[in-house]
Formats: sequence, structure tokens, C-alpha cells
Amino acid sequence: MSDCPLCPSEIAPTQCLWEDEQLRVLLCPEPGYPAFCRVIWRQHIAEMTDLNVDERMHLMTVVWLLEAALRALLAPDKINLASLGNQVPHLHWHVIPRFNDDRHFPDTVWAQPRRHGVEHPLNIDSLRKLLESGMA
Amino acid sequence: MSDCPLCPSEIAPTQCLWEDEQLRVLLCPEPGYPAFCRVIWRQHIAEMTDLNVDERMHLMTVVWLLEAALRALLAPDKINLASLGNQVPHLHWHVIPRFNDDRHFPDTVWAQPRRHGVEHPLNIDSLRKLLESGMA
Repeated sequence: MSDCPLCPSEIAPTQCLWEDEQLRVLLCPEPGYPAFCRVIWRQHIAEMTDLNVDERMHLMTVVWLLEAALRALLAPDKINLASLGNQVPHLHWHVIPRFNDDRHFPDTVWAQPRRHGVEHPLNIDSLRKLLESGMA
Repeated sequence: MSDCPLCPSEIAPTQCLWEDEQLRVLLCPEPGYPAFCRVIWRQHIAEMTDLNVDERMHLMTVVWLLEAALRALLAPDKINLASLGNQVPHLHWHVIPRFNDDRHFPDTVWAQPRRHGVEHPLNIDSLRKLLESGMA
């Protein structure tokens, strides 16, 4: 889809933490959330149940590897996982480490902010290494 | 955890759409969203990566069966899947059929409402039957 912002040709390679033929893991910082990540399926489809079972399992295995790496590096108070896609119906997962002093906690990052919030930065090279070792 | 609202003894059985020894599928209507469902893991743990791989796969298989059943019954414009748990750190998935005329579309259901919104009701018996046949 030439007008879809999540179709692969539109993604800056500097964001890419890991990729294979089916998906990409991207660092997509949002205000207050320097470690906000997304896992984006390459094919332009909308829902998990548009994938076959092997594809679903592969995508979730990468989401869980990313969750484990973020927990190991940042020890967040919670991990948030979400596949929404109302704005951009191209299958992608938000993987968000949350902290009890961040902008919205305990609300979702899509609610009104509660405070200025503390940012919890990420060592990108360490995250890349954990993902590469987990995928090996 | 005796003070956790998602631990099993606190759940009204009338909400239950399907259950097994590891999880329950519940209908949890929210304002504007009569078909808002949740899949709740019985054990009081917080994150997907606190489960072993077989448990993760079982939980997601049920989430996807629920997604497929809701798509078959309601033909929503989008399905939203989310495991957040900032308020209640007991592992559960929100499975939400979304419509372009609902209260928040295309925002998340956790944002400020955009309109009064059209409700898209669910035939609960049909959903139960689809879940039962899918689990068989």
C-alpha cells in the first residue's frame, strides 16, 4: 500500500533494532517514552487472525523476546503489549516498558498525561545484542 | 492474591463465556462497548514472559479464537488486542471489536471519547457456541 506509513519502504533504517523477511523490530520513541518499541509485520494486513498459525507464533515469539530484553535492561514496573491499528490498519505491536513515575502510569499511554513524567532511557546497543542473541 | 479483582474467586460466573483450568474468557461490557471481552489467566502473574512457552501459546490461541469469533459475528472495522495491567497487574488480555462509529474511533478506548458513539451489540449465545466449537 503506497500510502501506508508502516509499509517497509517508508521506515527509517536507523530505527531498526532487528529484522527478518517477515517483520521488523523498531525503536519508536514517543514523548516521555524513549524505549517505546514496535514490531511491524512486513505484509500489509490488518489482524492477527489474517496470519496463519506459524506466522502468528513467529510474530509473538519476537514480541516476547523484545519484552524479555526490555525487562532485563530496564526492569520496568510493567510491560504493555498492544495490537490496535485503528489509525493505521497495518499489523503492528506496541511493546512499551512502563514505570510508576512515567507520564501516564497507571493509565495507558493513550490517556491524558498525569504528570511531566520521568524518562527511562535505553541502551540501544545492549538491546540490539540481546535481540540478536535471542534470535540466534 | 486476596485483594486482586482478577483473581478467580472474585469473578461473576454470569460473565464467563468459556473457561479451562488455566484461563477464563469473560464478557466485560464497558460504556459504549457491549462486546468488550477479556481473557484472564487464572494464576496471579503479571507478564506474558512470566509464562512458559506452552502457556503463552495456549493463552494466545484462545485470544485468537475469540478474535475470530468476534470478527465472524460482528464484522468490526478493527480488532484491538492489549495486555496492559498497569492498574491490575494480573495477566489479562483485552479483546475489543472496534467500529468507525464507536465512542473513540480511531483512537484507543482509553483516550477521551470523540462522540456519543454507536453500540454494536453481541449475541452472547452465538459467541459461546463459536468458542465451544473452536475449543473442541
